[in-house]
Order: sequence, then C-alpha cells, then structure tokens
Amino acid sequence: MNGGLLLRYYSQPLKYDKVFRDPVLGHIYVEHQVILDLINTPEFQRLRRIKQLGTTSLTFHGAEHTRFSHSLGVYEITRRICDNFQRNYPTKEAGDGLWDDSERIVALCAALLHDVGHGAYSHTFEHIFHTNHEQITQQIITSKETEINHVLSQVGPDFPERVASVINKTYDNPQVVQMISSQVDADRMDYLLSDSYYTGAQYGKFDLDRILQVMRPYSGGICFRASGLHAIEYYIVCRFQMYQQVYFHPVSRSMEVILSHLLMRAKELALKPNSNFKPSLLMPIFENHYSLDDYLQIDDGVLNTYFIMWRRSEDPILSDLAKRFLNRHPFKSAKYDDQTEFLIPKLQEIIEKAGFNPKYYTATDNSFDQPYDVYDPKSKHQNAQIELMENDGNLVELSQASDLVKAITGKLIGDKRFFFPREMLKPTKNVELFQPLYDEFQKYIDNDNLIIPKEN
Amino acid sequence: MNGGLLLRYYSQPLKYDKVFRDPVLGHIYVEHQVILDLINTPEFQRLRRIKQLGTTSLTFHGAEHTRFSHSLGVYEITRRICDNFQRNYPTKEAGDGLWDDSERIVALCAALLHDVGHGAYSHTFEHIFHTNHEQITQQIITSKETEINHVLSQVGPDFPERVASVINKTYDNPQVVQMISSQVDADRMDYLLSDSYYTGAQYGKFDLDRILQVMRPYSGGICFRASGLHAIEYYIVCRFQMYQQVYFHPVSRSMEVILSHLLMRAKELALKPNSNFKPSLLMPIFENHYSLDDYLQIDDGVLNTYFIMWRRSEDPILSDLAKRFLNRHPFKSAKYDDQTEFLIPKLQEIIEKAGFNPKYYTATDNSFDQPYDVYDPKSKHQNAQIELMENDGNLVELSQASDLVKAITGKLIGDKRFFFPREMLKPTKNVELFQPLYDEFQKYIDNDNLIIPKEN
Amino acid sequence: MNGGLLLRYYSQPLKYDKVFRDPVLGHIYVEHQVILDLINTPEFQRLRRIKQLGTTSLTFHGAEHTRFSHSLGVYEITRRICDNFQRNYPTKEAGDGLWDDSERIVALCAALLHDVGHGAYSHTFEHIFHTNHEQITQQIITSKETEINHVLSQVGPDFPERVASVINKTYDNPQVVQMISSQVDADRMDYLLSDSYYTGAQYGKFDLDRILQVMRPYSGGICFRASGLHAIEYYIVCRFQMYQQVYFHPVSRSMEVILSHLLMRAKELALKPNSNFKPSLLMPIFENHYSLDDYLQIDDGVLNTYFIMWRRSEDPILSDLAKRFLNRHPFKSAKYDDQTEFLIPKLQEIIEKAGFNPKYYTATDNSFDQPYDVYDPKSKHQNAQIELMENDGNLVELSQASDLVKAITGKLIGDKRFFFPREMLKPTKNVELFQPLYDEFQKYIDNDNLIIPKEN
Amino acid sequence: MNGGLLLRYYSQPLKYDKVFRDPVLGHIYVEHQVILDLINTPEFQRLRRIKQLGTTSLTFHGAEHTRFSHSLGVYEITRRICDNFQRNYPTKEAGDGLWDDSERIVALCAALLHDVGHGAYSHTFEHIFHTNHEQITQQIITSKETEINHVLSQVGPDFPERVASVINKTYDNPQVVQMISSQVDADRMDYLLSDSYYTGAQYGKFDLDRILQVMRPYSGGICFRASGLHAIEYYIVCRFQMYQQVYFHPVSRSMEVILSHLLMRAKELALKPNSNFKPSLLMPIFENHYSLDDYLQIDDGVLNTYFIMWRRSEDPILSDLAKRFLNRHPFKSAKYDDQTEFLIPKLQEIIEKAGFNPKYYTATDNSFDQPYDVYDPKSKHQNAQIELMENDGNLVELSQASDLVKAITGKLIGDKRFFFPREMLKPTKNVELFQPLYDEFQKYIDNDNLIIPKEN
Repeated sequence: MNGGLLLRYYSQPLKYDKVFRDPVLGHIYVEHQVILDLINTPEFQRLRRIKQLGTTSLTFHGAEHTRFSHSLGVYEITRRICDNFQRNYPTKEAGDGLWDDSERIVALCAALLHDVGHGAYSHTFEHIFHTNHEQITQQIITSKETEINHVLSQVGPDFPERVASVINKTYDNPQVVQMISSQVDADRMDYLLSDSYYTGAQYGKFDLDRILQVMRPYSGGICFRASGLHAIEYYIVCRFQMYQQVYFHPVSRSMEVILSHLLMRAKELALKPNSNFKPSLLMPIFENHYSLDDYLQIDDGVLNTYFIMWRRSEDPILSDLAKRFLNRHPFKSAKYDDQTEFLIPKLQEIIEKAGFNPKYYTATDNSFDQPYDVYDPKSKHQNAQIELMENDGNLVELSQASDLVKAITGKLIGDKRFFFPREMLKPTKNVELFQPLYDEFQKYIDNDNLIIPKEN
Repeated sequence: MNGGLLLRYYSQPLKYDKVFRDPVLGHIYVEHQVILDLINTPEFQRLRRIKQLGTTSLTFHGAEHTRFSHSLGVYEITRRICDNFQRNYPTKEAGDGLWDDSERIVALCAALLHDVGHGAYSHTFEHIFHTNHEQITQQIITSKETEINHVLSQVGPDFPERVASVINKTYDNPQVVQMISSQVDADRMDYLLSDSYYTGAQYGKFDLDRILQVMRPYSGGICFRASGLHAIEYYIVCRFQMYQQVYFHPVSRSMEVILSHLLMRAKELALKPNSNFKPSLLMPIFENHYSLDDYLQIDDGVLNTYFIMWRRSEDPILSDLAKRFLNRHPFKSAKYDDQTEFLIPKLQEIIEKAGFNPKYYTATDNSFDQPYDVYDPKSKHQNAQIELMENDGNLVELSQASDLVKAITGKLIGDKRFFFPREMLKPTKNVELFQPLYDEFQKYIDNDNLIIPKEN
Repeated sequence: MNGGLLLRYYSQPLKYDKVFRDPVLGHIYVEHQVILDLINTPEFQRLRRIKQLGTTSLTFHGAEHTRFSHSLGVYEITRRICDNFQRNYPTKEAGDGLWDDSERIVALCAALLHDVGHGAYSHTFEHIFHTNHEQITQQIITSKETEINHVLSQVGPDFPERVASVINKTYDNPQVVQMISSQVDADRMDYLLSDSYYTGAQYGKFDLDRILQVMRPYSGGICFRASGLHAIEYYIVCRFQMYQQVYFHPVSRSMEVILSHLLMRAKELALKPNSNFKPSLLMPIFENHYSLDDYLQIDDGVLNTYFIMWRRSEDPILSDLAKRFLNRHPFKSAKYDDQTEFLIPKLQEIIEKAGFNPKYYTATDNSFDQPYDVYDPKSKHQNAQIELMENDGNLVELSQASDLVKAITGKLIGDKRFFFPREMLKPTKNVELFQPLYDEFQKYIDNDNLIIPKEN
Repeated sequence: MNGGLLLRYYSQPLKYDKVFRDPVLGHIYVEHQVILDLINTPEFQRLRRIKQLGTTSLTFHGAEHTRFSHSLGVYEITRRICDNFQRNYPTKEAGDGLWDDSERIVALCAALLHDVGHGAYSHTFEHIFHTNHEQITQQIITSKETEINHVLSQVGPDFPERVASVINKTYDNPQVVQMISSQVDADRMDYLLSDSYYTGAQYGKFDLDRILQVMRPYSGGICFRASGLHAIEYYIVCRFQMYQQVYFHPVSRSMEVILSHLLMRAKELALKPNSNFKPSLLMPIFENHYSLDDYLQIDDGVLNTYFIMWRRSEDPILSDLAKRFLNRHPFKSAKYDDQTEFLIPKLQEIIEKAGFNPKYYTATDNSFDQPYDVYDPKSKHQNAQIELMENDGNLVELSQASDLVKAITGKLIGDKRFFFPREMLKPTKNVELFQPLYDEFQKYIDNDNLIIPKEN
C-alpha cells in the first residue's frame, strides 16, 4: 500500500463503528482505524494500570477509574465537538474562522494521547523524581521506538509531530488546540464528569450536551453562543465544587504526603553507598538515568508491590510508611495561614521528641486553584479566557456577563495544611511516657486549625 | 475496660455516624465502632487492591471497582434490611418469627467480611492453584493471627466463630444467614447494582428500595410481601441480563484463559528442577505450602508486576502470554455444542501446525447459570427458593406467581466456547508459509460458531 | 415566493437549531421551519391539555405529562434514527434497501403529528362516544380547515396526504412507516421512556442509544444488527413490565370505569326529551354530530370543569360519580376468570339491593396485551415481527435468537376484573341496615379474587 | 371512640406503610391514618388540578407537575427530617434544644397542607384578584366547613389551630416552624428537586441525603453541622441557577402577562353594567364576594375552559388574548434599566399607533430574588439565616464560612423587562401600512435590551 492509500485507509471511517460502553458518556464511538490501533498499543493499554486520581481512591472508594478510561472520554468529547462543528459551522473558504474537518484526525489523536506519558501515581511521582509527564507524552508520540509512533506514522511521516504539537499548544489552528487545552476543553469536561461519577460526589454534573451545543469555532479558537451563558456558569461552579470537595480533600493529600515520603526514603536507601536495597524496576528512576521503556514499566501496581515487600524492610521508617500507605493510616492535618505558619517548627520539635523524624512524619502542603481566570499576560498558566458570542458576532468575556462568575473570578480557592502523625492526637502506645508532649501539642490544634495557644 | 463494657463500647452506636460516600448506594453509614475498626484492618484494606470483576475491566473499562467497595455495599444493604426489620417487624416473644435486633451486629460483621478471603483475580487464581476463598475467609475471621480476629474478639470471645458460621451458613438464625446468602441477598443485590453502575451496562438497575420495603422476616428466614411480586420479577430479569451481557462476555473469558495459562506456565517453570525462575511472592503458592500471610500478600497489582517482568523472560511462551495479557490481546473464540465438540482436537492439530502449543494457546470454557431456581433437594447449590407472603400469611413460591419467572425458572443460560489465537483468523506474520493452514482452519468457523465444513 | 423556493425554505435546515429541553431525551432539536411551524399551530398546542396517560396520574401522581411532550419525543427519536441511517446507511442507488434522506421531512412530520387527533382522556372518550383518534388525526392533517394542513401544504400540494399515509401505514416506503409504527418504533420507545420517567416506575429504562445504534434499514423496512440482541431483549422485558405495573394498574382502570360511567350518564341525561341539561361544549359529541372544531375544543380540563359543575347536579348518580372522580374515590375490584365469571350477576344483585345501580356502579374490564408477537397473518394487529440481521446479511426472527423472548412470545398478559363500590367492603353509612348484604358480598371476595364461597 | 383513643388511632403508625411512588424522592411513606385521610379530602385532591409552576410548562414542556405532588414531597422530606432528628438528637429533658418526637404529627400535617390554599395559576390569580393563598390555607385548615378541618379535629380539638400556626410561623417550637419555612426547608428542598426533575433543567439537583444528614435541631431552631458546608453551598448555588434559568424565564413571564391581562379584561367585561358576559364560576371572584367553596371550585382547567370559550367572544381583545394564551403566542420582551425606563411611554405610543391597546398589549415586570440573605431586621421577608454548628457547639453564619456564598449574599438577581406584541418585530399583517412604525420601534431594541437609538 502506498502512503496515500494508507493515509486514506487510516483516516477513513471504519465500516462499522467500534463501540466502547462508557458509564459516563454512554458510548464511545471509534470511527477510524488509526484510533483503534492507537488504543491497542502497549503504551496506551498501560494507562489501564494508572488510576486517574491517585490517592483519591483512598478517600472516595469508587474512584478507581483509570487514565485509560479518561483518555477514551476526552477522545469521545472531542469527537462530539468535531461532529457539531462540522454540522453547524463547516468552513466555506480559508480564513473564515469556521471548522475545517480535515483537522478532525489530528484533533482526535491528540485528545486520545494527551495523557499517555502519565506515570504511576503521577503527580507524586513527578514531584519526587522530577519526571515530567508532558515531556514524556511528547517523547512517546515522537520517538521511533514506540508502537504509538509507528501507528501515527502510517497516517503520514510528519503526523506524529503534528499530534505532539497540538498537545504542546504550538499547533497553528487554535480551534484544535483549544479543544484539548482551554478553560472549557474536552480534558476538563471529561474529568469533571468522570470524577464526579466515580467518586459519587454529585457536584461535577454540568450539562455537557448543552455546552457542546453552544460551543462554536471562530477565528480566535473556540467560543460559546451567548445563549449558553448559564450552562457555562454552572460548569464553572461545578469545577469550583469539585476542587473544594474532591481534589483538595485533606485525607487524599495526607496519603499523598505519605506516598511521597515513602518514595523519598526508598530512594535515599537505594542510593546509599554499598546498599543492597536495589528495587530493580525503580533503580533507573532513582538514579535519574532511565529510558522511555524503564519509565513505562512502572505503574500503580508496581509501586504497591514494592510497598508490600517493603513492609518487612529492616529500615523502620520505610517499613512503617509502607504500612501506613497500604493500610490507609493517613496523617492528621490542620490548616494554617500567614499568622500561624511560624508555629510549625515548634510543632515539628514536639513531634520529634515524641519519636517521629519530622522529615518523614510531617509536611506542609498548599492546594490552591482558581475556578476561573480572565486572561493575564503575566500568568504562568495562560488559560484562554472564556468568550461568549452575541447574536451580532460581538465577543464578551464571561465574567462581564455573569454576576456569579464575576464574584469568583481570580479567587484562589484552597488551603495550606500542616500534616503530622495521628498518634499526636490519639496516642496508641507509650501513652504515659509521652503524655505531656501530646498535651502540649494539642494546645496548638483547634477545630482543624493551627492556633496560637492562649497563655495560661 | 472489662469485657462487658468493651462489648457495649463495640456494639453501641457511635456518637456521630461515620459516612462513606458511595456512588451506587449514596452513602454508607457506619454506626458501630467494631465496623469502623474492621474496615481499618490491613486484611480488609487489602480488598482495595482486588478488582471485583477481575478481567471484566478489560472488556468494560469502567469496571475497576474493588472487593473493598463491594464489601461496604453488602454491609450497607444489610444495615438497611436490619433497619426495616427492626422498624416494621420487631420480635415480641421468642419464636414469633420476627426480627431480634440483637442479631444486628453479627449480621453486619458477616456482611462486611463475607468476601475477605478473595485472592488476586480470584476465580482464576483459585482454579489454577486450588485455593478456596471461602475457607480462607473463615480462616481470616477465626485465626488468632489476624487483626480482624482481634477486633471481633473484643465483642466477645466466641464472636469470631459466630460471624464465621453466618458466612458458612451454619448459624442458627436463618434470617441472618439469608440476608447474606440466598437468591435475593445483600451480596447479590450489591453486586448487580455495582457491576451495572461501573460497567455502564444499564441492565442491573432493579428497584432496591422497593425490594427492601417488601422484604420481611418469618420463621423460615426471609420472604417478600406478595405486593412486591413485580419488583422481585424485575430483579430476576436484571440478574439474567447481567449474566448474559457482562459475566459471560466472551472477551473477558478469553482474557481469563490467557491469565490462567500464564500462571500455569509460570508455575511449571518455577517448579522445574534447578530452575532459577523463583518469583518470590508466588513461590509459596506454587509449592502449595503457604501461610495465611503469604496468601494475603498477593493482589492484582502483584500479579501484574510479575507479568511486567515476565515480558522479558527467555521462555517464549511465558513472555508471549504476559504480553497478550498486559497489552490486552484476547484469544478469539467460537461457540460449540454437542454436535461440534468432536472438531476441537482437529482444530488443535491445525493450530499446533501453525506454531502454537495447544496446551497454552487453546482452551474450552463453558459458562452457565440459572437466573432463578426452585428448591431442588438434589442440587449442589441449595439456594433457598423465593417465597411470597400473601396478606393472610400464606406463602407462595415465586414461579407460581409470575409467568415471566416461570418461563425462565431452571433454564441454564450460557454457552460453551473454544478459544484460539486471533492469528488463526488474522495472521500477522509468516502469512505465506501458513496460509493453507489458516484457510483450512477458517472453514470451521462461521458467525461465531464452530461448524462442520461443507464437503467440496 | 414560488413553490420551489418555499419548499426549500420549509425543508432546509434552520440557521440555528431551535432546542426544547426535555427531561427524558435531554434535548429536542428542531432543524426545519416546517416542524417549528407545526408545533406552533393551535391543533398541536392543544395536545398540551391532554394527558398522555389519562387516569393513570390518579395512581402515579408524577404522570401528568402530555401528548404534546410525547409527540415531541417521537419526533426527536425519529430524527435520531434518520441521522443514524443517513450517516451509516445512505442509499447509493435506487432499490438498494438503504436510506434515502429525502424521506426525512415526511418521516419527521408524521412522527410529530401521529397523535394529533387524540381526544380528552382519549381511550375512555373514544370508547363511550365512538370517536376514533386515528381517523381524526387523518382529518386534521388533510382537511383544508386546519392550520396544520396549511403548514404542510407549503411543503408541497400533496404533502399532507403523504404525511397522512405514513400514519395510515399505506406509504410506500416501509422504512418510514416502521419508524413510526412497528414493534420497536419511535412511538413506543418514547412512551416507555417517558411513562417510566414521569411515573417513577423505573421499569421502562431500556437502552435507547444502543437500540438506535443497531437499528438499520433494509429492503423490507427496519431491522437490527444481531449484536444488538440483548438491547432488544431488554426492551421487550421493559415493555412487559410497564404493562403489568403501570398500564394495567387496577386503580387507574377503576378510575376509568368511573369516568366512563359518568360520561355515559351525562349523555343520557342530555339526550332525554325536554332535558335542560345541555353541557354546551359536549352536546355535539353527545348528539354524534360534531365538526372537527367541536371535537378539538374538548380537552381534559374541559371535562373536569363539567365534572366540577356536575357535582351539584340534582341527578344523584351524576353528582355522585363526579365527586368520586374528582375526589379520587376509586371503585374496588377483584379478578375473575372463566370459572368465576358466572358469579357476577349474583354480585350485581347484592350491590343493587345495597342501593347502587349496577349499570353505573359495577363494570367488568379485561386488559391484556402481548409483550411480543411473531407475525401472524390472521392477527388483527399486524405488527411486523422483529428481525435481526447477522453479519452475512441473513435475517433471524427475534424469538429464534432469544430464549427469554421465546418464553414470553405470544403470551397474553393481563387480567379480568369486576369493579364495584368500595362501600361493599368498607361501608360508610347505613351500616346496620345493610350489614347482612355486605357480609354476604364479602364471602365472594378473597385476596383480590372472586371466589365461590364455601358451603357452610 | 373517645378523644384519647381517637388521637392515638390517628397518630399511631399504620400497620403497613402506605407508599406512593415518587419519581423525585423514590417513595413517599405514609405512616399515620391522619395523613392518609388528609390526602383523601376533596380540598387536597383539588391540588392535582393546579400546576406547580403555572405558565412555566409553556416554556418547559415537562413541567406539568402539580401542587399535589409538591405537597406530598414536602411531607416526605419533613418525615425524613423527623426520622433523622429522632434517631440522632432525641430530647432527654425539656429545654435541651433537642428533638421532641411528639411534635412529629403537627409537623407532618403542616408540611402536607402548607400550600392547600393555592388557587388556579396561583400567583397570577392572586395578583389580579387580590386573593391570598396563605390566608386561604389558614381558612381551609381552621374553617369548620372543610373536610380537612374535620380530619384534623379528630386528632384533637385544638389541632387544626396548631397546624395553622406552624404554617403561620407563630407556633412556639422554632424547629417545627423552620422545617417548613426557612432558607433550607422542606418546601424549598422539594420544589428545587421537583422543578429540576420535571423541567429537565438539571440545575437543582443538590445532595438531599447529605443535607438531611448534617441538619440538626438546636435551641434556636435548625442548624447544620459544619462538615456539611459544601452541601449547603451547593444547594444555594442550585437555587441561584434555578431562579435564573427557570423561575425568571422571560417566556414564562410573558405568558403570565398575557394570562393576567386576559383575566383583567374578562373582569372588566363582566362587571360592565348590563353585561351579559357572566362566567358563572368566576363571578364570585370578579365581584370580590366569594365563599371558600367558590374559591375552591376554580382550578387551572376551569380557567382554560373559559379561555376556550372566550376565543369566540365578540370582544376582540378578550378573544385575541385567549388565543394567544391557548396557542402559546408569547409577547416579546426586552430588558430595561434605570437609564432606559423613560423610553417605555414612547414605545407604548408606537405600539398603540400600530393598533394594540397598550393597557392589554404591553407590560413591565421585574423579577428579582436573593439566593441567600443574612438576617436583616428591616427585611420584609425575615428568613432565618443559615447557621453552621462547629464541633464545639459554636454557631457560624454561612456566608462567614463560604467564600462562594459570601460572593452572592444579598445580591439581587433578576431583570426588568418590557413586554410587547411580537408583531412589532415580526409583523404578520398590514405589513406595508405599519412598516414605518415597526421600523421606528425596532430602533429601540438591540440584543434583548431597550436602547436609546443613535441619532441619525
């Protein structure tokens, strides 16, 4: 088969759709051979073994859903956007700002693959080992070693690069880029709906159909018909609620602290001179000298398997943290602010006296996000702001049209927390010995907050 | 604290309910300290790492839910049954066949723990290694080594045995036993609802509230008010549909075949004299000489981790099967019946000529079940039949009251399938060399069935 | 505007879809001017004032939904079928059995209008007054007096007749006819989903998306891809359940009996010589001499308004029945069969002695239906049987492929009931006087059945 | 039966619950004879004939649900609140601020009956005829003529007054009053859920279970455990969204304008000296001299029946408005503000020149509400503010704990609109004659707003 025929073969519709049943979106329709082949690569199948929300399943027990399922969802929502655009806004001539359906394949592939570089318990892993899932996604797509690259190359020799550039936001059609990356993109829409479904949190169920219906292409990318104002508004509120109730949940963050300290401890032990602690699959990462293949071998189950073995380690910290993680014994936490932050060293001192190394048994973490932000040229995260198009073609920025959104625009939501062993509040052993320490510690904690104790 | 106080402490309501959000049941209310402590044991937390439906998640990508989540669900449904019984049918005097609420704690503990002995990819694992999750459940509850036993013992010295006997169906109160094990029990009700929710299969959503409302205790155990006929009927149909569409799905069964052959191959290699292939966590099982602790170390992720390593094995069969499993390359299959079963050796011969060892690359599997069965003294599975109670207290067996149920009573549903490598239908290499073999093979397969080829 | 332009204007897509939010189907998309104009006619708006399920709302209080909402739903499902057909099975040459999208407009109009002739409390009304909603639907579409005819005529001079012939099942394209009238048509699919949603009965929620996905055109009309077997099977079961639990509910039927006797009594009084009881809007119907306009003036609210006034009638039967209807005091009922039918005259005699005229205070009613039937050339209702198409194009009749469907094929479901005043069971006045009568009567009733009393 | 026995009979649980299936709340459980008897009164059954949302069903076609269904819902939510309170917060001694379950019956009756005085298309009707549904509710409960009073009196001689005083907010137990009337009461919770369900608007689905779970009694009435903050926050947002998207929908308001002008015109015609236009059921209201019975005869269907007859009136305004209402031809509208309000007389002048009497064919309407308000002693509507109780018993007002709520606290939401005939924008006749008028008029309207036209 020559290149031209192959391309057509790959990008032409399949005779019958291949359908995946999806609890959130109903059905996922695969209409092109290239998408089916991408799904069947080892690199993509690996996403079945990486949970979408990491340690959140330890708080919301239903949230075992995977990056695999999310990636299919982002693909499907992108497909629906393309369908709507093609039906209602097909381009008539170059530069008219309408939708050119020959962009469909690149958009669908980018949507499907945008998360393919995610590692085990991804955010924690990245943080500790300085890996970067976005770079790895680029590599998986463009490196000649991967099956994904092989499949993409059959569409065209420069096709892998084009797909990578969409994910990288350097692709020249802003409509395609914004489908995947903007404040109302297929990625966020899928994760809000999915995370809401699998956690049972009820707060992320915005009206997807209505948003798809009012979404439209224009020369600057993607905007929304003004009649969709309330649907967008509700989406922003849902996002806000999901951050507050799910993504920033203190117990999940506490389990992340434990996970991260556990990996940090393991790395230290493994890199010690003459150590015979050499967890084979992790060594390349510990030594910061790993191939793509090394990276792709690690998933959530591999880490858990090491933790199971480390429970019996002779290192008491490694063993204890592994048990806390596997048996789900979270640290406790308390909120602090600028006024109380100075107390933390004092508290760490008490904790140390009670027998816990603060390096491994305490942490601070702040989780903040903005539910919606208008364009700010200085911002690191340049999220395109949300634009509404009135009947006469005029654009209005969302917060100008919605009192509710204006009220929350640019607001940072979240909190700063200090994490410490629950034994400081509910001692389980050595109770008598350490009671004075516990008593002192508890003076600093009130109703989930660090406080400055009253003078006696 | 003395025993009496302790007992009361453990069985008395908590000051505030501890609530788990559950996508299927809304909320799970933990009202007693003993339940909370059981949930927090390492043995119970381990259930988070065992998928409820094993290889089914490879067909229905949402179905990543765990035995942990199912166990909480069975607990919660049992709790609701107890609440209804206590409210509407409290016993007035011994032997009146009504509900004695002092049975609540034993019922709740048994509900929570009924699956605690499940192993990794449980049914496959059991089949290959002749382990038995029911026996192990009994052991976990009654063995002095476990934390679960420790928690249960605080309710009373014989309490672990009582809980075990409920699961074992030897407990003397048939109401308690039937809550957990009967044709309409908390176990089945939870798994139908959950499996329907997480697969997205839509077919298991019977009316739980209505069933709970018409369920009632009587001297023989549990029956249903006759006005609930249609709700029960619909539940039976839902079960029927879930078997056909989810539990017997040929692709999940195909992946189970691969999993099982992969483990069989690994065991053979490990037990070969002088082998240096010794997967440490699995050796006790391979050698059929394992402690409870050995058993409990293994979960789905541990198996997957071995498979990841085995991909690079020098044994070509082990390596190939590991890749097929991880990368989800199912075998194909075709239905056969008594008329066509004789063809299988012939087909295995062709497959062998094409380079696949039939021992590892073919299998037969039959999956059958009865959606509802009336009592049969000769049956191996003595399911109590479903009884309806009329207003005057008279009992009527379900299929006598429902034409629909009568139509499907005692019917075996399912099929027999022969599994073989998909290469026999879609060759990927050596195409020319083996083409005559492939051609011959394909004469025997038509529309998903084995057929006797027509003479030329 | 000349005819050609007009036609194009009417049948071409609207610039923006007009969208109706629908709780059951999500959104209803109006894409053509002719549909929007039909919805805005007085004849179509009148359907807002006719409940879909008549007296059923007196049993299921949520079921207040209207023929208007149902008609929009049938339109929308038809639209989705057309979209799928056009996307996956567009005709290439005449006679290839695939979908010709120029049939879309006639299909959509027929779907929208198929029920437009329904009268107030339609089935009861028809039964008593011998009106026929199907004939009236034809008239509304083809009579020059109506706005509906005016709108349709703008598509083309013969267009009203074409639309009428689809509803009449004489249209020459069987695909179009079967979309609206067959065992799995848009009409039934909408009413099962809607009636399930608004009653809350939970039993009608089959998987619409999946059915639409496997539905396909062929030369004989519409069939289903064989892979959709289970979705169709489940649909049949849902229909079965809805009949048993909603459509045949004895209390709704009892209220229908009262309604029908009330209207019969009113007609008798109005037609009595020299009567001055002349309910103006009803007289044309009573006298069986009514124009289309007379007919269309009557809706559920008009009948109720008369009942409100009749409560104060001097005729004790009219007044009493009106109160029973408005205040929802249903008759009681008991099932009977061939063995017990002979008791009915005896019971009517007792009832008459207790002071109730049996003509108005008793009734028999049988409600039976078949959840699925194969083709029977002798059957009055010639429902096209359901055909599955295998991969090789072969057709298999549904009950040949499904054990469950085979079990219920051709089965009549329902019961025969005898209705009588609840006072016969729970006397409210003259208790002492009539007690012996009540006692005698109650000997014949046991557990919702007529019985032959035991000899003393 | 003497009073004491009767009371017990009425207030003691029924042997079996009477259950209503409800699409929104699942099931409604009637546990006491008095509730069942109240439901069966003519005054309560009448609520089946009054739509919950009046003209809103003309915008959202599913919203045909009734005051009957809403009243059952408020009852059921109140019942669940009582169950939770009784289970978790039973009073131990007088004045401890906990729940006294002997208040249950009065709370349930008040919940069920709180809307029983609502009239046809209630708010419009009240506005035009100066009736007051709250006063009439009191009358229905306390007047000796009604069956509701008769049923309530059987609980105790002063029981009707007690029920009335709960609705009137003068009852001495603030917990009971706040269940029915406060910012998070059973009334609002039911209507948000129901209106969301039947409109399909998706925006009102807050987490009822969670709110019930954190709701608790205290000495000041009802507050919420602080852990429920997010559930309350989400409820406030849902309410906000429902106001914006459903309750203030401009088309529903437009249909209300037409309804109100139609009734106003009818009253004028009926009260003209020597008029023979005397719609019998409405005359007592028109003449402002009506009995309770007169009032209760009128429902939505009665009004519609008059409108059907008035279509043929000789009065062109009455006839035209009746058609506009029945055929759903809403007025158009445009928003105005303090800057543009002065234009309205000018526009009315143009409209009058175009042949429409501005008194009947134009209107202004402003719809504003606050999604949440803190306590304001000067406010007319003294809504108790929402209080959160921290673990130590401390109370915090909601907006102090929630940034989102603070952002919208006290904000008036809504708009002011000027309504006019759609012919001014889309003339249907006399087009040429009036074209200059239409052209002039349209200069003042832009993107749904009144504007000051630019000078030429």
